[in-house]
Amino acid sequence: MVQRLTEFDTIAAISTPLGEGGISIVRVSGEDAVAIVNRLFKGKDLTKVPSHTINYGHVVDPASGQVIDEVMVSVMLAPKTFTKEDTVEINCHGGIVVTNDILQLLLANGARMADPGEFTKRAFVNGRIDLTQAESVMDIIRAKTDKARQVAVKQLSGGLLTEIRALRQEILDVLANVEVNIDYPEYDEEEVTAQKMLNCAEAVSGKIARLLETAQEGQILRNGLKTAIVGRPNVGKSSLLNYLTQSDKAIVTDVAGTTRDTLEEFVSVKGVPLELIDTAGIHHTEDQVEKIGVERSKKAIAQADLILLLLDGSQELTEEDRQLLDLTAGKKRIIVLNKTDLGEKLSAADIAEESGSEVISTSIMKKEKLDELEALIKQLFFKGIENSNDQVLVTNQRQAGLLAKAKQQLADVVKGLEDGMPVDLVQIDFTGAWESLGEITGESAPDELINDLFSQFCLGK
Amino acid sequence: MVQRLTEFDTIAAISTPLGEGGISIVRVSGEDAVAIVNRLFKGKDLTKVPSHTINYGHVVDPASGQVIDEVMVSVMLAPKTFTKEDTVEINCHGGIVVTNDILQLLLANGARMADPGEFTKRAFVNGRIDLTQAESVMDIIRAKTDKARQVAVKQLSGGLLTEIRALRQEILDVLANVEVNIDYPEYDEEEVTAQKMLNCAEAVSGKIARLLETAQEGQILRNGLKTAIVGRPNVGKSSLLNYLTQSDKAIVTDVAGTTRDTLEEFVSVKGVPLELIDTAGIHHTEDQVEKIGVERSKKAIAQADLILLLLDGSQELTEEDRQLLDLTAGKKRIIVLNKTDLGEKLSAADIAEESGSEVISTSIMKKEKLDELEALIKQLFFKGIENSNDQVLVTNQRQAGLLAKAKQQLADVVKGLEDGMPVDLVQIDFTGAWESLGEITGESAPDELINDLFSQFCLGK
Repeated sequence: MVQRLTEFDTIAAISTPLGEGGISIVRVSGEDAVAIVNRLFKGKDLTKVPSHTINYGHVVDPASGQVIDEVMVSVMLAPKTFTKEDTVEINCHGGIVVTNDILQLLLANGARMADPGEFTKRAFVNGRIDLTQAESVMDIIRAKTDKARQVAVKQLSGGLLTEIRALRQEILDVLANVEVNIDYPEYDEEEVTAQKMLNCAEAVSGKIARLLETAQEGQILRNGLKTAIVGRPNVGKSSLLNYLTQSDKAIVTDVAGTTRDTLEEFVSVKGVPLELIDTAGIHHTEDQVEKIGVERSKKAIAQADLILLLLDGSQELTEEDRQLLDLTAGKKRIIVLNKTDLGEKLSAADIAEESGSEVISTSIMKKEKLDELEALIKQLFFKGIENSNDQVLVTNQRQAGLLAKAKQQLADVVKGLEDGMPVDLVQIDFTGAWESLGEITGESAPDELINDLFSQFCLGK
Repeated sequence: MVQRLTEFDTIAAISTPLGEGGISIVRVSGEDAVAIVNRLFKGKDLTKVPSHTINYGHVVDPASGQVIDEVMVSVMLAPKTFTKEDTVEINCHGGIVVTNDILQLLLANGARMADPGEFTKRAFVNGRIDLTQAESVMDIIRAKTDKARQVAVKQLSGGLLTEIRALRQEILDVLANVEVNIDYPEYDEEEVTAQKMLNCAEAVSGKIARLLETAQEGQILRNGLKTAIVGRPNVGKSSLLNYLTQSDKAIVTDVAGTTRDTLEEFVSVKGVPLELIDTAGIHHTEDQVEKIGVERSKKAIAQADLILLLLDGSQELTEEDRQLLDLTAGKKRIIVLNKTDLGEKLSAADIAEESGSEVISTSIMKKEKLDELEALIKQLFFKGIENSNDQVLVTNQRQAGLLAKAKQQLADVVKGLEDGMPVDLVQIDFTGAWESLGEITGESAPDELINDLFSQFCLGK
């Protein structure tokens, strides 16, 4: 557990995305936040304004007297702030030079440059949010679809925290019982305690299992589903790619100036973010594919969570088709029999039986059955969450790893008790499970974990 | 003049740079700004909060009840706002999806998507700022060096506006005199009026000339000085480029995550932003230059405002050197005799006399005289402004063009009067000059000009 210090130094960082825009925010948090900004501010005395007010004025370099920018300064006093510390936000013009000038001036006047995620870390250390909520902050920022954003907002509101806390409480109630048992053996029978612990371990383990079932969906929502479109030349890969990346599917294309570089390969298929792997140059021309061939497909197949394998349904299988069927055999895949408008030489039923995979016959050119293809993609990965807006999902590896660890510890408890081990020995794993769950929320997380977690945040958050 | 409407519709846009960051701002301005945001906001009744307060709560889709994000909402009531209208800013998590979701919700609930620059346009139409101040807003955002930011901030504070208004007033005083003369000819002699007009035209013209002298410096500060480093292979172009782009010169390199793509070619030489033109592949290797040769240099030379022509001072001039000397003869250039550490075969004095250009002997490798080279670059383009922080500069083509037009109209006035034309005829040009100056501030600008000007702004400003 990170020590809750009574005092922190005052940190500053640019909190808006960098680049040219209307407004940028430079955020300052800590005991001296108001005093430091006040040194640079001409307009009114910020140390005398009420909390949660917006104040017009200018940032002026106290050394040179030079006006840096016309700004609006938000003063928010502890504890009702993001960090639970005094926080000042300077809204300046959204230029790179001006924003940086203001940041530098803050650093020259007593603030320290914030580490990545340090504002959120303070919110955690100061007890405003737990680790799952802290993680959800970055998940909201990085969300690629509405659904992903929704799951993250639910987590920010404490959805996962509540569930984990309830599980910990169940374990704690039994642990208290064990302590009583040890201290006052005359009050309880060891067997009764053992039975209580067994029941609890099984019950909690079952609930963890149900949470873990959501982890795959949660992680796909968070990170996207790596998808490779695979098939021999001229089978329709480009057409499918074009269909998937058409503007109403490509993620956030309606925001002018969106940073396409990082996002254009994500498409939303019924709320599932697909990250399209550039398979064998299909982003370019079919010609290039022929040159690159099966070799490069192998790489894409190895990386992919989902394979969309295209076959020409109007022709017999070729040697290359068979190679690709073999290569993708072990993966989650959907076999798409394209060009049904040109005849149906291949039987969907036969291929399905032979391959053990989902098969769909379609004409991509004529946009036939593409909605069914999308439904199939969703169905293959998302079972429960679509109809529930309130579902709590486990959304990252860290959470899933710790849940799995707790589940294993509880399994060891069950086995130990069934083998007749004494309660005070089994108790070690039982307490271990309680601590593993505590690591998820941060209630029992080591400093290194916490530091590592926040270092992955973006600057200014 | 744009009509000052008593009512505008309510507009919304994302005002922070797009991308992933800690915080984004969605700005809403107009009569219904508070009411519209209030429909989406859960936390408190925004219609009842005082102006210039920050309010914690959630954005909730009123249709589905779904929580979109946890937000801080700034309520700023007219007239003390950027637009002089009621303005609400929603500070949400800085993700692309969440920010866009909130914008879409605003659009679905009564706001209209703002045009580029529409917030600033409203600030202008509602009389809070003039056109030169509006232009300075974008100049601050796009500023490439501190000096450029400083000039823009000065303009935002009304520096240029004040000067232009004073010139207009001088003209207006004489115009009033002419009107009196026409209405009551018995009160004044035409000759006296003509003399007044002549004096005024000459005085104002002189002041305009001094403003126009700043235009080149202003535009270089604003747009950067296109600079080509030219020379035959192995003469030291890469070394000079490396020196110029070293991290303390490259603009805003100390901001982590800065959008380098658009900025890395700008370097600050004593406050002058140089935009380095990638001449014949010197960004890559000297080898490539040899292949591409003089042909490609021609292009760079044609584009450049400043040529840094490198010669090997330790060797006699080659044919290629002479070609480059000829090619760059008509341009502003500095001839750099490099490799003085290897001997001095070329005489700086001779070359200077022969070429009529500034010549500097240096060893780039040994970093000799590079500071003098920088001083020379600055001196070649900046004469007056370096020591004055309060200098008003003309910073764009539009302003310079209108000043030149007014100056020409005043010259016509002078010529007309000297040719003995009647005052009421000459008055047309005199009034024209007054209007040209008014176009600079927007006091007499046609709608098309204003619309065109603001359409070049970024979204959300």
